[in-house]
Amino acid sequence: MAAEAGISRGTVSRVLNNEPYVSETARRAVEAAVAKVGYVRNAAARNLVTQRSRAIALIVHEPHSVVLDDPNIGNILIGTNAVLSDADHQLVTLMIDSQRDSDRVIEYLRGGFVDGAIILSARTGDPISEAIAELGLPASFVGHPPDAPAIPFIGIDNRAAAEAIVERLVATGRRRIGMLASGLDRDSGQDRLAGFQAALGDLFDPALVVRHPFYSYAAGAEGMAELLERDPHIDGVFAASDAVAAGAMDVLHRQGISIPEQVGIVGFDDSSWAIRCTPLLSTVRQPAETLGRRAAQQVLDQLLDGGEAPDGVILPTEIVWRASA
Amino acid sequence: MAAEAGISRGTVSRVLNNEPYVSETARRAVEAAVAKVGYVRNAAARNLVTQRSRAIALIVHEPHSVVLDDPNIGNILIGTNAVLSDADHQLVTLMIDSQRDSDRVIEYLRGGFVDGAIILSARTGDPISEAIAELGLPASFVGHPPDAPAIPFIGIDNRAAAEAIVERLVATGRRRIGMLASGLDRDSGQDRLAGFQAALGDLFDPALVVRHPFYSYAAGAEGMAELLERDPHIDGVFAASDAVAAGAMDVLHRQGISIPEQVGIVGFDDSSWAIRCTPLLSTVRQPAETLGRRAAQQVLDQLLDGGEAPDGVILPTEIVWRASA
Repeated sequence: MAAEAGISRGTVSRVLNNEPYVSETARRAVEAAVAKVGYVRNAAARNLVTQRSRAIALIVHEPHSVVLDDPNIGNILIGTNAVLSDADHQLVTLMIDSQRDSDRVIEYLRGGFVDGAIILSARTGDPISEAIAELGLPASFVGHPPDAPAIPFIGIDNRAAAEAIVERLVATGRRRIGMLASGLDRDSGQDRLAGFQAALGDLFDPALVVRHPFYSYAAGAEGMAELLERDPHIDGVFAASDAVAAGAMDVLHRQGISIPEQVGIVGFDDSSWAIRCTPLLSTVRQPAETLGRRAAQQVLDQLLDGGEAPDGVILPTEIVWRASA
Repeated sequence: MAAEAGISRGTVSRVLNNEPYVSETARRAVEAAVAKVGYVRNAAARNLVTQRSRAIALIVHEPHSVVLDDPNIGNILIGTNAVLSDADHQLVTLMIDSQRDSDRVIEYLRGGFVDGAIILSARTGDPISEAIAELGLPASFVGHPPDAPAIPFIGIDNRAAAEAIVERLVATGRRRIGMLASGLDRDSGQDRLAGFQAALGDLFDPALVVRHPFYSYAAGAEGMAELLERDPHIDGVFAASDAVAAGAMDVLHRQGISIPEQVGIVGFDDSSWAIRCTPLLSTVRQPAETLGRRAAQQVLDQLLDGGEAPDGVILPTEIVWRASA
């Protein structure tokens, strides 16, 4: 094409990449040549030169549960988008709702459409995480599965946070304390259960742990009904998320059980659920927007440095004590 | 590259596109040539040949409001993804949170990264919709702004649905009926207000319409407080969405006003908000997942036919009468 336009290859490249410092004459010559040889002025074509798409994927597992019940995802998205936008990178969110989605997303990642990826809510044995590690794609986990490949992550100390809030539940005199555990196929769920058990010590009774795959309102409603069947005299509940707590509180209300007088309940996230419960929910504040921001920054750092990937980063959490316990 | 491999250009293309009916010998020859000339086996590169990325963008405006307060978006996403996944297309969700995002998304759409687009919650004067029309990109609006370019859409009749639910509010004897109006910069908000006015006829009082930009819980909470200041004897409320209604109901509860005895309230969407209110919310059922499915199908149809774009399609809604009015 440089031959067609009668100008240097560097000039052609500058025109095609929309770079400055190209004379109007040269630009017209290149564009005429482009029209003549049928070259498509196309970012996908530019990738061939720059090997960069300036797009970063955010991979979201479990859309039903996450999108409908987890307001954290919104804040993570907003934080991620803000940082990538400032760096002129396009955030593209990819949803995994089936094995077919998973296979296709792996092909998409292999296809050069994105320069990096942020992975939310990955479970153990996640094939996408493995594919990203194999591809050597710059990436970051928000939270990470116990068997995660060597990809940097950003997260919180779920175990310590759970232990701290459950200890305060014990300190208010509760003795028959149950847990509505969710997400036990990933670090967040496993660590929250471990923190619960550590805080209770001798008070821990495995029969008072009800398990559900998702961090959802429905999980809380079903789980609380089950917990009350197992022990009608339960006096404390640790819900694995605020959405779970909201479902549980509605069941307690419907059965005429008063909160916090008869049952104290605490959640996790400090999402919008926590301030729409009656009474307001005591919970662990998760810095969701900052998690998104830092994950985006981790990916950008890898792209710019091209050097050693950063290690994992743990952000602090905070207990927000309200009226529910 | 065909010259490098010593085989036909068609064979090179078939290998690079992963098509069948290529001999193993030819495939190896092409792959060796690829390695020699530094060609990247890259979906972005394949686009140059096929002009297809097999990716479709879903463009979401207002992430703060939509992601945090609007469960419709989750169901629209799930419906869209299901149809595209069946057709082996990748859904990529793009979020617009600033003018900078808007400009960059337009560049992305021009860049050949996607074959089509679905546009959610577009407002009047939306530059992305205009860019899509200019590009001739196969596209579909879910809902559409009054000044929308000639792009197919899928939607509901917001005006008729609003009129029907407000008429039943009138039929239960309410006479001082206010509206918490949202999203007046797009068809959904304008049409719901028009339906409200039509249903009330002579009962309509413009002073009892409180306006807010977003369909959010906060809009409902702020708007209800304002409405009670304007008229403490209000006895009916039409909230522009269920999230808005939930915010309003919490204000009514806090002020000791009983629902539905003193104030009857109805919402719009039949989202998860509606069944987490006390009492349960009467509302208009919006077929969110079907909207997503049909929008995806409209885009795929345009890609396959390459012919005339389909017109707009209006899906039926249904009134769900519960305890709040």
